[in-house]
Amino acid sequence: MEPFLIHILGCGSALPTLRHSASSQVIELRGKLFMIDCGEGTQLQMRKYHISFTKIQTVFISHLHGDHCFGLIGLISTMGMLGRTAPLHIYAPKETGPLLDMQLKMFCTGLEFNVVFHAVDTKRHQVIYEDRSLTVESLPLQHRVPCNGFLFREKATLPHIRRDMIDCYEIPVSQINNIKLGADWTTEDGEVIPNSRLVTPADKSRSYAYCCDTRFIPSLHQLIEGVDVLYHDSTYDKSMEERAALYNHSTSTQAAMVAKEAHAGQLLLGHFSARYDNEEGILNEAKEIFPNTQLTDEGMTFPILAKK
Amino acid sequence: MEPFLIHILGCGSALPTLRHSASSQVIELRGKLFMIDCGEGTQLQMRKYHISFTKIQTVFISHLHGDHCFGLIGLISTMGMLGRTAPLHIYAPKETGPLLDMQLKMFCTGLEFNVVFHAVDTKRHQVIYEDRSLTVESLPLQHRVPCNGFLFREKATLPHIRRDMIDCYEIPVSQINNIKLGADWTTEDGEVIPNSRLVTPADKSRSYAYCCDTRFIPSLHQLIEGVDVLYHDSTYDKSMEERAALYNHSTSTQAAMVAKEAHAGQLLLGHFSARYDNEEGILNEAKEIFPNTQLTDEGMTFPILAKK
Repeated sequence: MEPFLIHILGCGSALPTLRHSASSQVIELRGKLFMIDCGEGTQLQMRKYHISFTKIQTVFISHLHGDHCFGLIGLISTMGMLGRTAPLHIYAPKETGPLLDMQLKMFCTGLEFNVVFHAVDTKRHQVIYEDRSLTVESLPLQHRVPCNGFLFREKATLPHIRRDMIDCYEIPVSQINNIKLGADWTTEDGEVIPNSRLVTPADKSRSYAYCCDTRFIPSLHQLIEGVDVLYHDSTYDKSMEERAALYNHSTSTQAAMVAKEAHAGQLLLGHFSARYDNEEGILNEAKEIFPNTQLTDEGMTFPILAKK
Repeated sequence: MEPFLIHILGCGSALPTLRHSASSQVIELRGKLFMIDCGEGTQLQMRKYHISFTKIQTVFISHLHGDHCFGLIGLISTMGMLGRTAPLHIYAPKETGPLLDMQLKMFCTGLEFNVVFHAVDTKRHQVIYEDRSLTVESLPLQHRVPCNGFLFREKATLPHIRRDMIDCYEIPVSQINNIKLGADWTTEDGEVIPNSRLVTPADKSRSYAYCCDTRFIPSLHQLIEGVDVLYHDSTYDKSMEERAALYNHSTSTQAAMVAKEAHAGQLLLGHFSARYDNEEGILNEAKEIFPNTQLTDEGMTFPILAKK
């Protein structure tokens, strides 16, 4: 099974600290890298954690707060200096377009690659990206400015060929793909070997939801039902619920409630307020409601595993 | 004598590395902080090296390359979150204005302080800033985009009162300022004590020039004659002189030639190319021409001392 990984580059919140970087993470699947959010300093985090500038093909920006997007123009600029030629796709709220245009004109004349901007309607839940490995859906969130999360869904893969059966029936290599696609096999004697004897089931498709920044949305679980891994805004601990509501953020307890209602496999907490010297309290409160919860931290990599 | 200090926050060049940060430094004189350039990540460097966000009253931007200005909007945004009320003055090439306007509208609504933009004519050598402690002059440089350096000149200070003479002649406190300003003193017996016996000479005014980014300008020394400390673009070593010319940067040898011709007191080297694992070679080449040369590094603080 191909690894499906989340690399955490930054899981801090708006105020910069030496403890956490501004929001950014990189999703890795089948050799392609997708960035979600790009706060100031993201390109340095990429250097630090050996994330390839070349392999990033798409950047998704959740919303236009600085701690989620101030690093974007620097990233593009550096990609230019590194001689990138492949287009870079940016999915972000529509207001990003004019700013990006102005910045590209001022700072990135002579780029040898295209920056292709895709305006995302933050109010709609829809597929905004698709390739042969996965789809990405926008998840409307509730924050102080238009904001949406992202749901990465791996596409169904093909069943696994049973090597022993192929050898046993001496099936030629040219037929392997047909069998993966469901064909039976007829031997020279006319015996039909049903497809189910020739393959084992495909791996379960995996999914990952990024829901940050957002206030607690009691219905959010409906959009991400059964998600394998959920990363959810958990800026505050339970005692700060009022403040969370005021600033349109969530507590870790609320994040855990979303994970529980969604029947998620695992919950990752992030976007921690600068007030915390450690996030153990935040973690423990979430675990009371949703035991399979983990704190994120810069440099950590999480595998997305299909839930049991 | 009040300390006149240069805090180095970043002395790398355009390509981000883990070794050096993007350009930024902070000048400290009489409790006021002035920032020169503000590359991406500058606000984190401020956290790391305990530079007060509140005390920065003015930011000077040399030119509109990302490694000198991408951190500006993040800095302003953070100042807002920290509750700043004092105006922040930005001196930068005129093209900065429209970008800053757009960014402030998008990211900084509700700021409780004014951001006051001053367009600098990069082609003219003139005083662009003045307060009671110092003046700042723009220094036209030659780079791929309009660019100027900055010359900080401390204003003349008053002579020092001779405590022993004040006591001897029982001169009242109310007269001290007059004497600092040059007055003689007449005793009750009518004896005139000349001012020169009552004071020792004022400290020599100090000066600091920041010349980055620039190609080698053979006449630059004329604008900074006698400067106490010069920070000069030294992106490359001597062997890269052609590349330096091509990209409108300087070698350390060229930086040293400017320092020598200007009769500077000390030369600080910075803006090092990402290709160097250490800058000892760059330093040694400069020292051959101008012995009192030092490498800069993040976190270093240099006192500006009057040259002997």
